[in-house]
Amino acid sequence: VTDSDFAPRSVIAKKRDRLAVSSEEISRFISSFVAGSVTDYQMTAFLMAAFLNGLTGEETAALTLAMAQSGRRLKLDRLPGIKVDKHSTGGVGDKVSIPLAPLVAACGVPVPMVSGRGLGHTGGTLDKLESIPGFRTRLSAEDFERVLAGVGYVMGGQSEDLAPADRRMYALRDVTATIESIPLIVSSILSKKIAEGAQALVLDVKCGRGAFMADEQRARTLARELVRVGTLLGLKTVAFITDMDRPLGRAVGHSVEIEESIGLLKGQGPPDLLEITLALGSAMLVLGEGANDLESARSRLLAAIADGSGLERFRKLVEAQGGDPGVLDDPAGLPQAPYKLIVECERNGYVGDLDPLLLAEAVVELGGGRRRVEDAIDPAVGILIHRALGEAVKKGEPLLTILAAWDEAARRVAGNQVRAAVRVDREPPPLTPLIRGVVTPASDLTWDEARAAKLQGGLA
Amino acid sequence: VTDSDFAPRSVIAKKRDRLAVSSEEISRFISSFVAGSVTDYQMTAFLMAAFLNGLTGEETAALTLAMAQSGRRLKLDRLPGIKVDKHSTGGVGDKVSIPLAPLVAACGVPVPMVSGRGLGHTGGTLDKLESIPGFRTRLSAEDFERVLAGVGYVMGGQSEDLAPADRRMYALRDVTATIESIPLIVSSILSKKIAEGAQALVLDVKCGRGAFMADEQRARTLARELVRVGTLLGLKTVAFITDMDRPLGRAVGHSVEIEESIGLLKGQGPPDLLEITLALGSAMLVLGEGANDLESARSRLLAAIADGSGLERFRKLVEAQGGDPGVLDDPAGLPQAPYKLIVECERNGYVGDLDPLLLAEAVVELGGGRRRVEDAIDPAVGILIHRALGEAVKKGEPLLTILAAWDEAARRVAGNQVRAAVRVDREPPPLTPLIRGVVTPASDLTWDEARAAKLQGGLA
Repeated sequence: VTDSDFAPRSVIAKKRDRLAVSSEEISRFISSFVAGSVTDYQMTAFLMAAFLNGLTGEETAALTLAMAQSGRRLKLDRLPGIKVDKHSTGGVGDKVSIPLAPLVAACGVPVPMVSGRGLGHTGGTLDKLESIPGFRTRLSAEDFERVLAGVGYVMGGQSEDLAPADRRMYALRDVTATIESIPLIVSSILSKKIAEGAQALVLDVKCGRGAFMADEQRARTLARELVRVGTLLGLKTVAFITDMDRPLGRAVGHSVEIEESIGLLKGQGPPDLLEITLALGSAMLVLGEGANDLESARSRLLAAIADGSGLERFRKLVEAQGGDPGVLDDPAGLPQAPYKLIVECERNGYVGDLDPLLLAEAVVELGGGRRRVEDAIDPAVGILIHRALGEAVKKGEPLLTILAAWDEAARRVAGNQVRAAVRVDREPPPLTPLIRGVVTPASDLTWDEARAAKLQGGLA
Repeated sequence: VTDSDFAPRSVIAKKRDRLAVSSEEISRFISSFVAGSVTDYQMTAFLMAAFLNGLTGEETAALTLAMAQSGRRLKLDRLPGIKVDKHSTGGVGDKVSIPLAPLVAACGVPVPMVSGRGLGHTGGTLDKLESIPGFRTRLSAEDFERVLAGVGYVMGGQSEDLAPADRRMYALRDVTATIESIPLIVSSILSKKIAEGAQALVLDVKCGRGAFMADEQRARTLARELVRVGTLLGLKTVAFITDMDRPLGRAVGHSVEIEESIGLLKGQGPPDLLEITLALGSAMLVLGEGANDLESARSRLLAAIADGSGLERFRKLVEAQGGDPGVLDDPAGLPQAPYKLIVECERNGYVGDLDPLLLAEAVVELGGGRRRVEDAIDPAVGILIHRALGEAVKKGEPLLTILAAWDEAARRVAGNQVRAAVRVDREPPPLTPLIRGVVTPASDLTWDEARAAKLQGGLA
């Protein structure tokens, strides 16, 4: 196929007509898009056709690879170890990456992590890290590799030259109503991971009201596609489906989530956050060959909390990326909100609901989220949860604390989103499992099955 | 709805999800597209969604009206009479507009005709007219109205400010594989007719190998949609479905089709071309209230041939649009091809097939067609058909004449496309009717039914 033979229109027409598009054609379509000979308006027609007619696993894999190859690919081969990354589809209070990466690194598995920013109701790991004074997330490829080599892990943003096709396609999808497509989501997530040099990947697909996908069946389909396409591309991939019908942990915001993450590394993490961190972390250790099975991996991670080695890794990372490590010892060094409003419980009973979406909307309303990509965020504001889902409460006890930039904002969200988010019942609610399933290349398991399996070859 | 409330993405999302899009939303989407706040890449996503999910009749009508209103609309109200136009979806040898419009005008019904150029295998009326030395088809709105008022009809191209949304959308559809969509074809055709000020419209939907739509069922669907949407928009609309499994008339090219058109106006038209011209023309006279029924309309048109008044109208038009009227008396004034190659019949029998697509490809190969919009065409080249479908032939008799710019080109197409296009059989082929059906707002009729009906109120 020579350049003059390549007709972008015929690639669009094939997808329009549900005909197979070859890997070669997809590769040419993406490289021509990056080079400018496939236009934005041809790309959006293709994306809408892909949205409506779907992509096969092979087409999604070819698309993912082409997107990964559209820019600079990090070469991490000279660093020892299997490089493992983790990706979450985003949730409320989901700060897991922040304590997880240093714990995994402390257990000897390198983690080259490229994270994103918050938009809408979900917060972003980069934004949270930047609440640490001085912390830099904009790293050159050389910085990224140097920090990874020196600390054992690194946390950066997607640089301009990492999978540029993905960045441009995502921006086009955003304004043409083609975001919510499973194959397009899969290729966007995986292309960045392949470009950053990850060899194994643990995915956390959130489902529930606070997640991108509220529906469990759809979350499961996404998890399966991620594992299928990741595996096709030679990435060792496992996906968790976890609950996002409640916020994760006890803090929603930026400073407050960093503080909670530090607490976890000091052995004071809330149970749900700890459970998810240990589950994802043990899978990362198994895939990265830092443990033979999930149970021994879990023990190693717990030891890295107990002996402070996880916290030490985080300290090194903060130092390496220009942040003030003093916040690990005294969280007062993080941005603090001037106004605090404690919401008290109005009756005796049990916390029957904590709607994560409404709590997230409260934080956005307080200034701690972005409605549009260009919005600035206030890292100091947020919500602290004193009583989690299912816990007993007494009338007059503190239920939540609203951290705000001014009094009026705190009172406004207390009377609106926060009031609507919380429900106290006479009876304790039935508690659904936090981990709803584990998808491996071979099968779908429950978490108990996965833990019992002691699977060889890293959760294959 | 204020400007800041309008979200193009939500319009795209509704069409993506097969939800109803309101006329207001479609109108805003198109006006914002023309103004620049809806981008090309949003338009192509919408067009692909419309291609795959369809548009309702109401949505198509709203889209058509918005496109018609996107630029300057001709105001022809001060001219007397019901303005009637005709549109063909394009075929091989389809020069019908050229003799039709002056005949209808000679019968007292004004015809403001906006035509197109040829692309691919179909020729364009404008290109054919421009083979007349000096003939101008680029008319200002004032020229257009002046010629219409003075001559009783006018033949121009789509000016920059006539339905600009249609022109831009068509260009985008062309490169994003969204041409072959019935509602998008309907809105493109009708928007220009409404913008040019037509009040009634006769459509010639071609079907067969030489047509845009080879399949009769699909051609019928297009005809029904054109009539339904035209009627919704207050345009008196009737559609014919006519055969394009053979070329129309005895000439394919530019100069040669002008010569054949002049011949028809002089009473020497080939039977198939005459039949289509009279059928479409009689419907135009009925819709334009220049006749009460199809039979009396047909008589009036035949009289306009017999008394030379149709030819006189054409002469006036050529003069009014800057062309040399001398060609009406001596066709040698039209561009003439230097090389002529006569293809003789190789056996006795009957012409069993004349593949219109292959003949058209031969003309394109000779330089008489455009492969791309920017190509120049040679008006002198073409093919003359001496024996039409079903006619008896004897070995050694001339079957076709190839008119070429050079000898080698004539021999090449004679040995390739032309040889493959013609088949001579021992038995005469079964002849299918030239007019396959007539679609009115009320019903689908055969041509015989339509002629017998003497319908009141113009084929309603």
